[in-house]
Amino acid sequence: MEPTVIWYTGLPGSGKTTLAESLNSILTEQGHPTVILDGDNIRKGLSSDLGFSDADRAENIRRVAEVAKLMAEAKLTVIVAMISPFDAERQMAREIMRGITFIETHINAPLAVCESRDPKGMYKKARSGKLKKFTGVDSIYEPPVSPELRVDTVKLSVEESTNIIVAYLKRAAFGGELA
Amino acid sequence: MEPTVIWYTGLPGSGKTTLAESLNSILTEQGHPTVILDGDNIRKGLSSDLGFSDADRAENIRRVAEVAKLMAEAKLTVIVAMISPFDAERQMAREIMRGITFIETHINAPLAVCESRDPKGMYKKARSGKLKKFTGVDSIYEPPVSPELRVDTVKLSVEESTNIIVAYLKRAAFGGELA
Repeated sequence: MEPTVIWYTGLPGSGKTTLAESLNSILTEQGHPTVILDGDNIRKGLSSDLGFSDADRAENIRRVAEVAKLMAEAKLTVIVAMISPFDAERQMAREIMRGITFIETHINAPLAVCESRDPKGMYKKARSGKLKKFTGVDSIYEPPVSPELRVDTVKLSVEESTNIIVAYLKRAAFGGELA
Repeated sequence: MEPTVIWYTGLPGSGKTTLAESLNSILTEQGHPTVILDGDNIRKGLSSDLGFSDADRAENIRRVAEVAKLMAEAKLTVIVAMISPFDAERQMAREIMRGITFIETHINAPLAVCESRDPKGMYKKARSGKLKKFTGVDSIYEPPVSPELRVDTVKLSVEESTNIIVAYLKRAAFGGELA
């Protein structure tokens, strides 16, 4: 198996965390040591000193990319679930992980759908002005132009989305080691 | 096996990297997924934005502790090899990793011995003034008062030192899973 980082990018509420957990289950069941780096958790620990300015967002992405690299080199399959709204930063992450199989995966759903899901009530807070610089509301999201994968979580169920990702992983990194 | 972080602290040249590699070999041979977080490598990646002021040193330790925690939670046995000269920062690392087996290990050798080894020529640079804030020369090292382990790399060979650490690991974290 190649050292691999699967990088989920998408709007808040697009399904990144759900799909990270779903993929994690499948890989773990099959005996592949796996770790999820979730944006929200990272903000509570490694990046707890950072805010949401553009510079701080970039630094947050840089740190996660460096950690993902260390983990992939230690033979964990790394699933990153981060809004990572800017193309330049995702490009930086890819650069940092040169030599590692990097699978940028756009978890795609229209803003209106993400906002109606609002799993953590964050869109509501942002619309009411209680939360500033919230991606999709008053901070932009740049969809990746040519990611390795794009899954549409409106048309596809969690299971279908996960199957697409697993099928890609088999080809790109795992070969016969993944069923 | 308990999630475990073995934290090597000691002067430059005390033997941290050598003993990290030696322990890593033994754990890996026995099928235990292991990772080394080496201070010098971390400075090239995750902490490449930090200098050597007291505040930056503390931030460096904080980041490594957060990463070590994430890795231990992902079931890697983590070997940290960092000078980590200040007691307060090692205490902070311990706090961050509450709930994880934390084995502070003092890799101990007198300054004169470390300086005569000078494996990377850093003492020489520091003595000539080319390198500032170098631990042991113009920045202090606070030896841990009550670490879980202390190994004396003047009296003991690499093999003997490693055996002491492995014996401790068996009792503290691995039980019968380590021979």
